[in-house]
Amino acid sequence: MAFPTNLKQLFNRAPKKNNWAGLIEAYRPWLPVTKKTPVISLYEGATPLLPVKSISDRIGNGVQVYVKYDGLNPTGSFKDRGMTMAISKAKEAGCEAVICASTGNTSASAAAYARKGGMKAFVIIPDGYVAQGKLAQALVYGAEILSIKGNFDTALDIVRELSEKYPITLVNSVNPFRLQGQKTAAFEIIENLGNAPDWLCIPMGNAGNISAYWMGFQEYFSANKSKKLPKMMGFQASGSAPLVIGKTVEEPETIATAIRIGNPVNKEKALLVKNSSNGKFLSVTDSEIINAYKILGKEEGIFCEPASASSVAGLLKLKDEVPKNSKIVCVLTGNGLKDPECAINNNDSIFHSGLNPDINSIAKTMGF
Amino acid sequence: MAFPTNLKQLFNRAPKKNNWAGLIEAYRPWLPVTKKTPVISLYEGATPLLPVKSISDRIGNGVQVYVKYDGLNPTGSFKDRGMTMAISKAKEAGCEAVICASTGNTSASAAAYARKGGMKAFVIIPDGYVAQGKLAQALVYGAEILSIKGNFDTALDIVRELSEKYPITLVNSVNPFRLQGQKTAAFEIIENLGNAPDWLCIPMGNAGNISAYWMGFQEYFSANKSKKLPKMMGFQASGSAPLVIGKTVEEPETIATAIRIGNPVNKEKALLVKNSSNGKFLSVTDSEIINAYKILGKEEGIFCEPASASSVAGLLKLKDEVPKNSKIVCVLTGNGLKDPECAINNNDSIFHSGLNPDINSIAKTMGF
Repeated sequence: MAFPTNLKQLFNRAPKKNNWAGLIEAYRPWLPVTKKTPVISLYEGATPLLPVKSISDRIGNGVQVYVKYDGLNPTGSFKDRGMTMAISKAKEAGCEAVICASTGNTSASAAAYARKGGMKAFVIIPDGYVAQGKLAQALVYGAEILSIKGNFDTALDIVRELSEKYPITLVNSVNPFRLQGQKTAAFEIIENLGNAPDWLCIPMGNAGNISAYWMGFQEYFSANKSKKLPKMMGFQASGSAPLVIGKTVEEPETIATAIRIGNPVNKEKALLVKNSSNGKFLSVTDSEIINAYKILGKEEGIFCEPASASSVAGLLKLKDEVPKNSKIVCVLTGNGLKDPECAINNNDSIFHSGLNPDINSIAKTMGF
Repeated sequence: MAFPTNLKQLFNRAPKKNNWAGLIEAYRPWLPVTKKTPVISLYEGATPLLPVKSISDRIGNGVQVYVKYDGLNPTGSFKDRGMTMAISKAKEAGCEAVICASTGNTSASAAAYARKGGMKAFVIIPDGYVAQGKLAQALVYGAEILSIKGNFDTALDIVRELSEKYPITLVNSVNPFRLQGQKTAAFEIIENLGNAPDWLCIPMGNAGNISAYWMGFQEYFSANKSKKLPKMMGFQASGSAPLVIGKTVEEPETIATAIRIGNPVNKEKALLVKNSSNGKFLSVTDSEIINAYKILGKEEGIFCEPASASSVAGLLKLKDEVPKNSKIVCVLTGNGLKDPECAINNNDSIFHSGLNPDINSIAKTMGF
């Protein structure tokens, strides 16, 4: 079976008019909100599920691969799905300040939604641990940033203690409303494909998102909105793979900063998901991650964070295990613009600089 | 009249399921495509139209202000709307390479769509003129970049001549298909509001987008999909305001790099739009732009390019001319992540660094 290029073949619904106002409004019956909940939204969700021919072709056997490009959420990552819920519920509870410990994406999202909701946002980050684009966001969104000596785990301990002792809501992934919001990505995939995929490939850092997706797939399956459940395939960077090696990594190291976490908060939940879904956890090297990152960029026009590319790198690594004619969705959790350094240091582009503005010599340089 | 916070009051349609597959599929009857046109799409369009209370409150008089956040397009700017059309038509014509001269957003978009369509992408840029994040994109998308000595106008002359003499399609804003794609943003606004706004506030660089929006508003008005036409309010940075001062600016200078253009390609078209719509052109200073940029960030959770903020800066400058109870849409053309430097250098955030990981001293720093 050839990879379909006609959109009517790809999706069970013809495209309709734009009428999206955020995931709480779209999935209200599925979420722990009431009429009294003030909806703090930046119209997150409804991100593209893009067919990726370049990856499908590399796998062959009639396999259809899609990417869920969650980097197109308002602050550039999947965190917005959870944050609209966490901040709306914090607002409903009368909270005036929120706090999180974050290596980047969570802090950006928390700050944006908190400020949109008229709340203060405190962000605790480990000194010297954050990609430039990510820090820029928290600053612009008006967060108060506290950079501490220590790693992500130290920062997380501190925010937990602060939120217990002081009137401030913790919006890290231990916040249960986060996963509720994040599960809607699974709903969207089922709506687009008309069913769940055979595999869901996803990067794992704190491992909250894999649990959230599984919750979403299970809920829609129970409601007869899909006919099957996917195998949940979780991927970590090899220098930061506590869920693959089965123990905490003291000094996690990888180019994929968004998943550079040595002691995942949701590890028990994630292991349960793996077992329940007959899934698999696997690590991919930084070089495999960058290979996938480059393919997505130069063959698909998709610019994602290095951490996001680990889902595609993992799928390519498991190439020979992919069932014939199956449908696979890889989650791209963040926007590549979050980490321009990585792009500048890792690309195969040809760059000619300092050329004279002369038409003939330029044409020659171009190969004419 | 208070600014509505209920989404059902804001929009004439309840939010529906996600089912978007790009603007060509959504607006096919309105675009110069046929069944034979290969659709090269990254599912651009359907970007959020967000109510912005902070700006509405500053204007008062029951005025409702919205921003059209086109920075959430696949490559982070409104350029994607035009590029899906330009590249699809280039592909239909059998073209194997495209070229553009660009200070950033156009090159990113052209490269992404060309590569998605299996074509080569050549980008001519002026030496030392481009924000880091933007260049990173063209590199990741696999463009071949030619950096020449000279300014944007020199680069534009060169790509025009190259596309005349060699088998390569020009996808700069002189490409007529670009404006066709861009006009769909006006369609989306009318669908969201149930009518055209009273004013459309928009940044002007090459001034293609204001012409495209006007085309869209006129087409939907003629088809009875809106009951009025908006006044088109175009804004330029004061150091780069050829359309305001009525002559070419030899050395344009502004923090808003995306509209730093001294000799706009579409100047005649833009002046016609101003006159036909009873609109106005005005310049805003860099400091007014940064003020608007900061408000959007820290009060709305919206991170845009500095150029985008000129539409909001212009509206705030014309505060006293805004009709009571009117609806205004400001176009935010690009994602703030494109220019992290600007964010880092222009924010009011509080940043404490090098703190000891001690709970009591941290709480004290936070004001508890």
